[in-house]
Amino acid sequence: MVENQPIRFGVLGCAEITRKVARAISMAPNSTLYAIGSRSIDKAKKFAADNSFPSAIKIYGSYNEVLEDESVDVAYIPLPTSLHLKWAVMAAEKKKHVLLEKPATLNVGELDEILKACEANGVQYMDATMWMHHPRTEKMKEILSDRSLFGELRSIHTVYTSMGDKNFLENDIRVRPDLDALGALGDSGWYCIRMSLWAVDYELPKTVTAHRGPIFNKSGVNLSCGATLLWEDGKLATFHCSFVSNLTMDVSILGTNGTLRLNDFLIPFNETTASFSFSLRSRFLDRALGWEPTPKEHVVPTELPQEARMVMEIVRLAMKIRDSGSNPDKKWDSISRKTQLVVDAVKASMDKGFEPIEIVS
Amino acid sequence: MVENQPIRFGVLGCAEITRKVARAISMAPNSTLYAIGSRSIDKAKKFAADNSFPSAIKIYGSYNEVLEDESVDVAYIPLPTSLHLKWAVMAAEKKKHVLLEKPATLNVGELDEILKACEANGVQYMDATMWMHHPRTEKMKEILSDRSLFGELRSIHTVYTSMGDKNFLENDIRVRPDLDALGALGDSGWYCIRMSLWAVDYELPKTVTAHRGPIFNKSGVNLSCGATLLWEDGKLATFHCSFVSNLTMDVSILGTNGTLRLNDFLIPFNETTASFSFSLRSRFLDRALGWEPTPKEHVVPTELPQEARMVMEIVRLAMKIRDSGSNPDKKWDSISRKTQLVVDAVKASMDKGFEPIEIVS
Repeated sequence: MVENQPIRFGVLGCAEITRKVARAISMAPNSTLYAIGSRSIDKAKKFAADNSFPSAIKIYGSYNEVLEDESVDVAYIPLPTSLHLKWAVMAAEKKKHVLLEKPATLNVGELDEILKACEANGVQYMDATMWMHHPRTEKMKEILSDRSLFGELRSIHTVYTSMGDKNFLENDIRVRPDLDALGALGDSGWYCIRMSLWAVDYELPKTVTAHRGPIFNKSGVNLSCGATLLWEDGKLATFHCSFVSNLTMDVSILGTNGTLRLNDFLIPFNETTASFSFSLRSRFLDRALGWEPTPKEHVVPTELPQEARMVMEIVRLAMKIRDSGSNPDKKWDSISRKTQLVVDAVKASMDKGFEPIEIVS
Repeated sequence: MVENQPIRFGVLGCAEITRKVARAISMAPNSTLYAIGSRSIDKAKKFAADNSFPSAIKIYGSYNEVLEDESVDVAYIPLPTSLHLKWAVMAAEKKKHVLLEKPATLNVGELDEILKACEANGVQYMDATMWMHHPRTEKMKEILSDRSLFGELRSIHTVYTSMGDKNFLENDIRVRPDLDALGALGDSGWYCIRMSLWAVDYELPKTVTAHRGPIFNKSGVNLSCGATLLWEDGKLATFHCSFVSNLTMDVSILGTNGTLRLNDFLIPFNETTASFSFSLRSRFLDRALGWEPTPKEHVVPTELPQEARMVMEIVRLAMKIRDSGSNPDKKWDSISRKTQLVVDAVKASMDKGFEPIEIVS
């Protein structure tokens, strides 16, 4: 009975992140790591052995063979961004659901081709933005959505930086113009932008203006940048992302009544609990000698780590399609596309001398 | 013996903040609240009584009388900004040291007149930026200055917002074009800019570019704005300040090796201790399942609150001048002037359609 079978994942390539996602697949119910393919079968074998992948895993010497394998239900694609279009479309055409690493694509035109292929083939699309699946994210959304608590949202400020050494900044996949031409904007900015859109329930900003002072490597790939997103009603988001500062993941979301903060939004400091702080109607004590109330820490436990919950979500959607004949859920198409639109706009703004770019959806 | 006498403060006006500073004067050694003047003597009397000012305090029905009183050593000037030029210059001419509330002035031209008057009359100038005097500030500077610890400074991100109600946003002194024409930029932005300059040892940025999306009230006074400060070597600061969000005071300072954060930079959550968090060489655990190390909280106790320490500092400088014939310390002239230059540049950038403004010192 197909209905009792787990959802089988096939992985394209031996990216470092696959080690984490493979573990997540093994932790999540109803999912199994079924196949992995690399351009070098020896590399794939070694990778599977080094990471204690299931001994029954199919190992292929090409991406294509993974997609040709009829038993594969979901293709997990952590390839360099420049390869996403080709392989995600191919996966869809082979009737695989697509779990795509970020940034989704180099531009929204490419993403639209992928989404079109997924739609035409009745397969689920999802980008691999893990933090969205943490129960902390849900808890924060509850607070933000309660206008009697948080009030009206005014601004969102995100910082996501990591520190690349000299070799990274010149040679890593993420800063090579032929592989990940969006650099830090695509890698780190993606998350800041997603967080900003998430906070406003995916309303698109009206304009996006890059901040002055971006840094590029010798090949012209972005190593550091920032921008202001401005919405029709006056609320705004700022972000700063880079590969040249100590690992930092800060979010402050400000409303008329409340302030929500966290310092590990992408990857929680530890796996079993994650926290955020929330201040409600912060006031000074008499003579401004202190604050009342002070920010309150909220701790949210999670049985499974966010990446396992992400796997559970695409498994759930894949099972619905397989077992109930449901249509793919378009939620992720829309969220991913909006994120990409803003990424594109930041890039366009940098290209055009920091002019504001209107977002047209 | 004059040398055993405390330094005597005369206050111009009955600003709310005076309640805090009066307490600080009473807490600091060698200082005394000697006189207060208001345009209405009844208001001054009531203010002194309501706040249990020393019974011996001289109460005047004008600012001028405070400055005419030969016993006053320091004039504390918390008047609306548009009055700073006139009264600070007058104070200096009457040989009073000047403790000036922020923003120092409406523009650097005015500040230069004040500084010139202070210099010509041999009196000390200091702006009343209290957080700079907290021992936490010193401790943070130790960490930032230790390049083997913090590495190279890359960026500074500050947010200072408070929530004004409708009446505040239309009628408060801080948003009236005739009184505090700089609005949120002068009131809140001042602190963000000072923090950014402090972090880089007062090196002036090369350019300042306001972010799009500032908010103004009906009278054209700023209620919300932000900017990017960009230095010659590529480091940058962003800030966001406003009167339309819940009270928030966030700072993140990022270096190549470290991240320093605090959420109450202006006024600590409580009076006796203040904390900041510091992360050093943050790394992911294997498979990015968490962080190691996680940020460490540093708690800095203080015997006297920061405003009393500010009073102590101007008392110390005033005593040195009085008792040892020292010249006034020019440190505060320079820090205040640089802060004002950047405030002016943010305003100019907003006025000129968000163009970058070069800072010329």
